[in-house]
Amino acid sequence: MLKSLALSAVPLIFSSVLSGQQPTIAERLGYPRDSKLLIIHADDLGFAHSADAASFDALNSGAITSASIMMPTPWVTEVAAYAKTHPQADLGLHLTLTSEWETYRWDGLAPTDQVPTLYDPDGTLPNDESIVAKRAKPEEVERELRAQIDRALALGIKPTHLDSHMGALFSTPALFNVYAKVAREYHLPFLAVRQGFGAGDFNITPKDVVLDAVVIAGGDVPRDKWKEFYLNAINNLKPGVTELIIHLGHDDAELQAVTVNHEPYGSAWRQRDYEVVNSAEFKKALQDNRVILIKWRDLGRLVQ
Amino acid sequence: MLKSLALSAVPLIFSSVLSGQQPTIAERLGYPRDSKLLIIHADDLGFAHSADAASFDALNSGAITSASIMMPTPWVTEVAAYAKTHPQADLGLHLTLTSEWETYRWDGLAPTDQVPTLYDPDGTLPNDESIVAKRAKPEEVERELRAQIDRALALGIKPTHLDSHMGALFSTPALFNVYAKVAREYHLPFLAVRQGFGAGDFNITPKDVVLDAVVIAGGDVPRDKWKEFYLNAINNLKPGVTELIIHLGHDDAELQAVTVNHEPYGSAWRQRDYEVVNSAEFKKALQDNRVILIKWRDLGRLVQ
Repeated sequence: MLKSLALSAVPLIFSSVLSGQQPTIAERLGYPRDSKLLIIHADDLGFAHSADAASFDALNSGAITSASIMMPTPWVTEVAAYAKTHPQADLGLHLTLTSEWETYRWDGLAPTDQVPTLYDPDGTLPNDESIVAKRAKPEEVERELRAQIDRALALGIKPTHLDSHMGALFSTPALFNVYAKVAREYHLPFLAVRQGFGAGDFNITPKDVVLDAVVIAGGDVPRDKWKEFYLNAINNLKPGVTELIIHLGHDDAELQAVTVNHEPYGSAWRQRDYEVVNSAEFKKALQDNRVILIKWRDLGRLVQ
Repeated sequence: MLKSLALSAVPLIFSSVLSGQQPTIAERLGYPRDSKLLIIHADDLGFAHSADAASFDALNSGAITSASIMMPTPWVTEVAAYAKTHPQADLGLHLTLTSEWETYRWDGLAPTDQVPTLYDPDGTLPNDESIVAKRAKPEEVERELRAQIDRALALGIKPTHLDSHMGALFSTPALFNVYAKVAREYHLPFLAVRQGFGAGDFNITPKDVVLDAVVIAGGDVPRDKWKEFYLNAINNLKPGVTELIIHLGHDDAELQAVTVNHEPYGSAWRQRDYEVVNSAEFKKALQDNRVILIKWRDLGRLVQ
């Protein structure tokens, strides 16, 4: 579907170029200039079986178009097995420098003696991205990012894109630039947004694919207005490429235990997200607003 | 209870020494020479929340006397929190060189570049102890064991003993001797059994506390004769120190997912073990056979 559209719409790129304007991502993908393109993206694959099961289900049904994997997490082998049997699934890497839950932790993948500034004194990854921003040396972060990408490749995962767990890699220009550099070397598109990373010390090149907006539910969304938040977001989408970042899971004993004492992005939160993207109202809003769902793999073609 | 018994029985040690016999462990602990001492020991703490919950419950109720923790596992922080609030709980370290489940894995704790022979080519720990026996260099195993003990100490866990996940450290004399050496350095008693490790190239010293027997349900126990297996074991206990090694868990969605395609030591298996040690028949068998329940902490006093 996307492929044939892309082919039939090639002339649009030319018309834009001829008019003297920079082609938009939509045009480069073969869509009209003012299209509303949306990636519906589930973060955190690998961190819990419950999250994997909900995310696989949403990928299979098309409720989401993309997801990203936390390579250092316990369930990553389950995701690798899914990736093997679902080669069309759009799976990137959710580069991970933090381990935020209270009773359930993971370590990074680079040899720990080569990345000492990534770890707390007790040998665990920090639970907050601000600690990464303050303490992590960029050259050590680079080692860890490469280790995570290389582990994915070793497990047979072919990532479609990179992004950053808890935004740790967006927290300083130095960390962002390491992330962008590694992504370019592996010829992978990476999450960056025009508002925020496109200026100043954040090194963005003309070849990079930069999104126009990211929508993500934060702690300020009233828990009883969950669906309204997402419907508003869809109804107010602007032309351009937006990523809607969600967090899926089934609100079960495992996920409740993993996220204990941690309501934001916790078990009930992920169940609510799952229910929204599977709801008829959400799907209708996408249709009513003529939203074109795309994947990171589509964007990846632009950086080859 | 144990303490007052130990004090009142001190003369028995002397009578044994005076008679020219080596004192048994029972006598060294202050019990009659022919006592049946039993450690009821749950393995694998940390590997799943379900296993932790079942094991904590059994420790709290006294259904088991001791347990051991897998330091590289995702839920180890949950166990560390339990250890902190339950300082009397008898918790050792289940030294871990394998990661045996199909879709749920952990890495070791030493910097991976210092212990390359511990890892599969894809960077994961092997799923079988025979691979450890064949491939792991003893000096690298020693590094990993020290890293696991040091992580425990850093997390505030004061281990009462050491043993070996999947028996990997019992698989060759060289690995066993590394394990025994490290245990002695940390002044910790370690699981070793008179039949098996007490001779030949396995380096046992007179100061080591060597158990007389270990009982563990294997794959050959009919699943519908589970309780009978354990009742028979208790009814046939010999004088001396025996460790009954069990594997606890609640047969729930998490544990079923962790142990998928892995019936032995799987989810239902651990639920059966949990039911047996909590059953009235099992407790009656312990009483009827005048079994004295002890902990590794008791044995630890003999190696200080």
